[in-house]
Amino acid sequence: MSLLAVGTVAFDAIETPFGKTDRIVGGAATYVCLSASYFTSNVNLVAVVGDDFPGEEIKDLNNHGINTDGLQIRNGEKSFFWSGKYHNDMNSRDTLVTELNVLADFDPVIPASYQDCEFLMLGNLTPQIQQTVIKRLTKRPKLIVMDTMNFWMDIAMDDLKETLKLVDVLTINDEEARQLSGEYSLIKAARAIQNMGPKYLVIKKGEHGALLFGKEQIFSAPALPLEDVFDPTGAGDTFAGGFIGYMASKGEITFENMKRAVIHGSAMASFCVEKFGTERIKNLTPKEIEERVAAFSKLVQF
Amino acid sequence: MSLLAVGTVAFDAIETPFGKTDRIVGGAATYVCLSASYFTSNVNLVAVVGDDFPGEEIKDLNNHGINTDGLQIRNGEKSFFWSGKYHNDMNSRDTLVTELNVLADFDPVIPASYQDCEFLMLGNLTPQIQQTVIKRLTKRPKLIVMDTMNFWMDIAMDDLKETLKLVDVLTINDEEARQLSGEYSLIKAARAIQNMGPKYLVIKKGEHGALLFGKEQIFSAPALPLEDVFDPTGAGDTFAGGFIGYMASKGEITFENMKRAVIHGSAMASFCVEKFGTERIKNLTPKEIEERVAAFSKLVQF
Repeated sequence: MSLLAVGTVAFDAIETPFGKTDRIVGGAATYVCLSASYFTSNVNLVAVVGDDFPGEEIKDLNNHGINTDGLQIRNGEKSFFWSGKYHNDMNSRDTLVTELNVLADFDPVIPASYQDCEFLMLGNLTPQIQQTVIKRLTKRPKLIVMDTMNFWMDIAMDDLKETLKLVDVLTINDEEARQLSGEYSLIKAARAIQNMGPKYLVIKKGEHGALLFGKEQIFSAPALPLEDVFDPTGAGDTFAGGFIGYMASKGEITFENMKRAVIHGSAMASFCVEKFGTERIKNLTPKEIEERVAAFSKLVQF
Repeated sequence: MSLLAVGTVAFDAIETPFGKTDRIVGGAATYVCLSASYFTSNVNLVAVVGDDFPGEEIKDLNNHGINTDGLQIRNGEKSFFWSGKYHNDMNSRDTLVTELNVLADFDPVIPASYQDCEFLMLGNLTPQIQQTVIKRLTKRPKLIVMDTMNFWMDIAMDDLKETLKLVDVLTINDEEARQLSGEYSLIKAARAIQNMGPKYLVIKKGEHGALLFGKEQIFSAPALPLEDVFDPTGAGDTFAGGFIGYMASKGEITFENMKRAVIHGSAMASFCVEKFGTERIKNLTPKEIEERVAAFSKLVQF
């Protein structure tokens, strides 16, 4: 089924204990779309870049079956740029540079051909823009998944809470779940967040896996223990893309499908961290994904 | 099959965000034995207390089928005492008081009737004493499980490494695994630790579950998301007791049994934290344990 993804398409410069990149292509929507493209053939992107964004990178997205009709290219402007440095534990990072550029006044225009999308992924962006996207759709999608981060909790909590009322699934990490809810226990945090709107909540715990909360149902997904985490950038977005891509491929919104969606999202994220940027998730085979999902299954069987 | 447990039997005074206790009964071996007693009827304790230790507490252990012939009671001396205060996140704590008392010169005497024990649990103690216990057994047990902590890595690393050579399973937490191995990646840490002696390694991750490493095999056990963690004291020891108790009940040392042992240990630990000290694990029914194990199973099924 058709999937609409909104978020950043951007440049990142990344430093990890394993190495350093110049400007490479990143952005939440880039990871979401690439990851989702392995599960559903109808992926539609809404985002904005400057005219510094390489045409061949857009072609790369198209080659993955991603429709870029909704990708605005602003002449004479620059793409969003983020630069960060990961600490040795790879769980924390410092932001070195954030240049909003085209993102500063991004107005998400939805092409008419996207209007019938049944699955909507709101990648990490201002809650205000996420809300605008929902309001500009003439028909409410079957499933709206939203990603966000602590930054918006710090500076736009009211907007965030308004947007939360409109979505079905929220994906955040454990610290963000605690911040958003004011509860330390993740069970209590989940209940509080579900009362804010989302019927489902995915709490991402990085190397500790993920928890999915439904109506009085909980699912615990493991993380694949990895030899090395090379670059965590985009892992959360890749998770989200795999999650909603899998859901779109199944069509039916059930807790069982959602559990498998969490596993597929986790599998995709485990690939993402193996190389810098989008390198690994640009070049996957269905067989590799199948084997990775099987590894997750084996990991928890007893 | 018969199980020998060595460790502390002691007094604890605990402060958590939920409340505060006076001196209550604690100690690694107390938790290990109580937890194991739900799985195997032949549990034998080696430990030392002072004459301040209440006779009815020893009777309580006996009522759980625990043989206390190897519990030395030193006249005119005081039992080991530990006092600690947990921080709000319940994952870290400050030690307020440590009085070694009888533990200062503990000489672990193994009663003749314990000599045929097939499962040995070395609860957290100086690595030197743990080693002495192994050497005083005329026949090597079928399975030796050892618990330890960062404290011994700080002050007795050489002894610890000598003892590690003699055991089959080591149970430690993730930070300790990193400290012991000098590796951040838990995969690499596990490999390094397995090269030090133990064929199997259990890495306990608290609210994030546990990882079991065998020969090129990994099992990821979830933690049960809990409404509240009331008091984490003894959770690791309770895990160890459930783990080895389950193994003793099965007899055969296979990775499949060990996976189920990790789940049973995790289930017991999830009870332990629900009340102060040993209160909860003193009063469990087989049905409660069965239901809790089923909850773990349900949590990861997809």
